[in-house]
Amino acid sequence: MRTVYVIGIGAGDPDHLTLQAVAAMNRVDVFFTIDKGEAKSDLAALRTELLARHVTRPHRVVGAPDPERDRAAGAYEAAVVDWQDRREAVYARMITDELGPDEVGAFLVWGDPAVYDGTLRILEKIDAVPFEVVSIPGISSVQALAAAHRLILNRVGRPFTVTTGRRLAAGGFPADADDVVVMLDSRNAFADLPDTDLDIFWGAYVGSADEVLVHGDLQAVKDEIREVWARERARKGWIMDTYLLRRRE
Amino acid sequence: MRTVYVIGIGAGDPDHLTLQAVAAMNRVDVFFTIDKGEAKSDLAALRTELLARHVTRPHRVVGAPDPERDRAAGAYEAAVVDWQDRREAVYARMITDELGPDEVGAFLVWGDPAVYDGTLRILEKIDAVPFEVVSIPGISSVQALAAAHRLILNRVGRPFTVTTGRRLAAGGFPADADDVVVMLDSRNAFADLPDTDLDIFWGAYVGSADEVLVHGDLQAVKDEIREVWARERARKGWIMDTYLLRRRE
Repeated sequence: MRTVYVIGIGAGDPDHLTLQAVAAMNRVDVFFTIDKGEAKSDLAALRTELLARHVTRPHRVVGAPDPERDRAAGAYEAAVVDWQDRREAVYARMITDELGPDEVGAFLVWGDPAVYDGTLRILEKIDAVPFEVVSIPGISSVQALAAAHRLILNRVGRPFTVTTGRRLAAGGFPADADDVVVMLDSRNAFADLPDTDLDIFWGAYVGSADEVLVHGDLQAVKDEIREVWARERARKGWIMDTYLLRRRE
Repeated sequence: MRTVYVIGIGAGDPDHLTLQAVAAMNRVDVFFTIDKGEAKSDLAALRTELLARHVTRPHRVVGAPDPERDRAAGAYEAAVVDWQDRREAVYARMITDELGPDEVGAFLVWGDPAVYDGTLRILEKIDAVPFEVVSIPGISSVQALAAAHRLILNRVGRPFTVTTGRRLAAGGFPADADDVVVMLDSRNAFADLPDTDLDIFWGAYVGSADEVLVHGDLQAVKDEIREVWARERARKGWIMDTYLLRRRE
């Protein structure tokens, strides 16, 4: 039986890797790679570093380009689903053509496979050949952000919510929430919030050597964050930021 | 300057430990331990195993009993805060008495210091001696649960919420949410939900050798989960379970 691992490699610090991930990587015959847009050279470099440092058995690396995604599409979910369908075809071809019976393949993903990563969803749909899927958790950017700011995400006995920049932009700060982590914000959605009782704990490239952090009263620091965001994005060619919005008591 | 690490050691699998945590543990002079109620012997055993396997430099281990917590108190938050105040006194004494200037101390905590763990909150209040706090993320039981069920916590472009069993029992399934992770449920709060459109992905001791998993339509499997919960709790003397409730499309 073929096996495909989806391994979370953490949020940018090579030492976010777990011992479980290292052990799993040393059972892999084929690492599947997808070239991912702007962040591609950094992810590729981290992946190469992790394989060189930790994998001691012979293995193959098989790559394919990421299908184009229609980022101008009005219907976000439909565009994502369409893009995932095309990715599914790419993954199915790689698994069918490159993974022998009884071999182990692996995808290395940023963060945690369970947190805003589509790999498991795509693999679940593939039925060209039978294979078992194993998910290996990793440190997500949410956790790296919290650690960098020495935060606890929840307050005593209270919930927290993880959402996207797109939803924050569309719906504002959720009325019934006090602690909201925002991921995948490509447009500085925080800066348009009118709320005057929010603190923000913001970070980009958290856990990596490029880490930048800003925190404070949202209205007081939002312009600073916008400037840092624009500067860093221009400098590196891509940016991955995450933040916690916390309503003051 | 004294330094105190708060190191997440993962959800029960010794291999959840990150390379960052292993490196940090090898800079520690004093490991502080607190004996935690029912789960104490298992946590103590895991801690002893991790130190024996990974720490190669000389170190001291300093322990103190956990202050009693009034679990019968009506006001949950007040009881937690009161208990944290007493813990603060214990921690302050250990740090003041046992940690030399320029030494590094550490607390090893289950899961992730940012997810329903109070250690960072307690340390923040201590001002008896100055020290720097460093938080090291770890795999939380939320992530171990997701990995065991091969779940993605969010659906495409949508949020997820992490809450407690107590809140679920008090307020029911949140009206505006579709994906809710529940932690710290000491009373099977899921079983009282009337909702007929929820799936549950449940697990106890997730990531450890004792892992038990159940999933399915909430109304169809809730009695099975209650039975497994009672049986396992009786067998081990304590139980730590986590689950995702997911509204069907």
